[in-house]
Amino acid sequence: MSTPIRPFRTDTDGRLWLLDQRRLPADEHWFELSTVEETARAIETMAVRGAPALACVAALGLARAARTFPDDPEAYAASFAAGLDRLRRTRPTAVNLFVALDEVAAADRSVPPDDVAARRSAAWGAARDHARRDLESCQAIGAHGAALMPDEGGVVTHCNAGALATAGHGTALGVIRSAVFAGKRLRVYADETRPVLQGARLTAWELARDGIDVTVICEGMAADLMRRGRIHAAIVGADRIVRNGDVANKIGTYALAIACRHHRIPFYVAAPWTTIDLAIPDGSEIPIERRADEEVTHVGPTRIVPEAVGVENPAFDVTPAELVTAIVTDRGVFRPDELDAHASEGSPSPGRTS
Amino acid sequence: MSTPIRPFRTDTDGRLWLLDQRRLPADEHWFELSTVEETARAIETMAVRGAPALACVAALGLARAARTFPDDPEAYAASFAAGLDRLRRTRPTAVNLFVALDEVAAADRSVPPDDVAARRSAAWGAARDHARRDLESCQAIGAHGAALMPDEGGVVTHCNAGALATAGHGTALGVIRSAVFAGKRLRVYADETRPVLQGARLTAWELARDGIDVTVICEGMAADLMRRGRIHAAIVGADRIVRNGDVANKIGTYALAIACRHHRIPFYVAAPWTTIDLAIPDGSEIPIERRADEEVTHVGPTRIVPEAVGVENPAFDVTPAELVTAIVTDRGVFRPDELDAHASEGSPSPGRTS
Repeated sequence: MSTPIRPFRTDTDGRLWLLDQRRLPADEHWFELSTVEETARAIETMAVRGAPALACVAALGLARAARTFPDDPEAYAASFAAGLDRLRRTRPTAVNLFVALDEVAAADRSVPPDDVAARRSAAWGAARDHARRDLESCQAIGAHGAALMPDEGGVVTHCNAGALATAGHGTALGVIRSAVFAGKRLRVYADETRPVLQGARLTAWELARDGIDVTVICEGMAADLMRRGRIHAAIVGADRIVRNGDVANKIGTYALAIACRHHRIPFYVAAPWTTIDLAIPDGSEIPIERRADEEVTHVGPTRIVPEAVGVENPAFDVTPAELVTAIVTDRGVFRPDELDAHASEGSPSPGRTS
Repeated sequence: MSTPIRPFRTDTDGRLWLLDQRRLPADEHWFELSTVEETARAIETMAVRGAPALACVAALGLARAARTFPDDPEAYAASFAAGLDRLRRTRPTAVNLFVALDEVAAADRSVPPDDVAARRSAAWGAARDHARRDLESCQAIGAHGAALMPDEGGVVTHCNAGALATAGHGTALGVIRSAVFAGKRLRVYADETRPVLQGARLTAWELARDGIDVTVICEGMAADLMRRGRIHAAIVGADRIVRNGDVANKIGTYALAIACRHHRIPFYVAAPWTTIDLAIPDGSEIPIERRADEEVTHVGPTRIVPEAVGVENPAFDVTPAELVTAIVTDRGVFRPDELDAHASEGSPSPGRTS
């Protein structure tokens, strides 16, 4: 087993480094983020992606940039507010982004406003704490979910809900990792995940690197493999889960869930509790990002759609709760309809447990 | 409206020209086929693809090559048999290939074996006749199927069952063309169709060229569009339809049919009667071609799957008859379970009507 895979690193000098996921699997290229704008562009262009990971990077990027903000308290506050605002506008669908930035903002308010050194330190501490808790959360998700995996068999996943999408270990892939590390013999089928190919490029890369059996398939092959008895479970991540248990995740997730239902194969969603947004009653109110046409029309330098022909490119879809067998969180495994009751049982507020 | 789109052309000198579909949509490049091996390679590498079109090209390619075979009757017969054998081994799934080659072989046997000039002429006539009947068949499919299309709405299709996949007009796209030409207002959603991207590259190209409203989507988006009420019917082609009504077609067709069933959207298959193989009782016995890994691992020069990670690449899947609303043929529209009875009603033998 090689070093655990992480999508970002901080060093003892308080610098922030990002693995450029746009260049995987061809190159493993790390670059430094120092400013809010660099951080925002890295998120928007998907140098880092995955709801938990981009939330960590947004929080760390803001805290890192805070060291470059003016020393004057009022000017610092203005830069901090502008940074928060810029980062909130990077991607709309994942709720984790807003949770992580709120934590950094709360830390900022928790220290005397005139003490800019303390404010910088509080922001960095809160961002690092968010990332630490995300990693612990993934490990808890893995521990809770491993029991749901077959002792031996095929598991299909979509997009990349892995170490690269979190602070490490992964959510859906965290469950797979924990199951494999516990001795289960899984063959993972990774949907290539058009248009951005996170499955082919990222899931395949990180599972192969951990020595886990992985085969890449095109989305249209999963149902055929189910029919031929080669797939025994599906597990995916989530960008936002709402009160009734509806799940927003990478486009194509819903089609996979339908195929699972048709073949009576369990369909699991793995996500930290911070992904659950109880303020939204059902999936119809989740904002869905529409991304640039070029993601569909081109692969690398190759144009695959004729010029003048339009495309659709919603980044996410909503899988209704009734197609979800169970949701694996750091607090345990729930049926989709149990989330709301669990949240109101007086348990700790979202994201503060792991 | 521009000149009708055709995937191959014969000229008055008896030469055979092929539109290189591997280079679409970037280039419209035509090249000549003179030998059996050139024809076989063009089919294997998918310079021409689509069950009806590749059958026409196989038949025409054999007949064209026959002019280069020796004048000695026995040597001619040996070359002819070797050519038949080589072309039969190009692609296993589409039944049309075998039907068309059988027709050329039957024509060869219908003239005196010592009259090589007559044999050449008979082969060429039979191949041209096959292509002419294929075009007529597509026009009949279009006429029968147009009534099934909504007067206004979204229609999803998978792969390319168009003019480029036939001698012209198309099967699934023939139905769409006939409906649009009759005044129906259709918006076509073309599944890009991984891995070879026939939908993005070919369906989009030929529909746009005919002025038909077409939008390219990734496979994983179709179910989401259905859920949002944007798709009112699906229509696809077929590589082989068997006695119980099971349908082999491009990988991903089965997943689309499941999504249609889930949303109660009609799922139609359009194919010439020659695609129906009554010798096979059900889909489990259809030979499914597995194609090269590179189709999945690369798009143009870009490697999208890490080296050392395996992939699956079945070219086709089987959609069970119970998911098929109706099959549109040149003989009319049938429920899948009506095919066998219709065939045994003493109607003309397959492929001889249009």
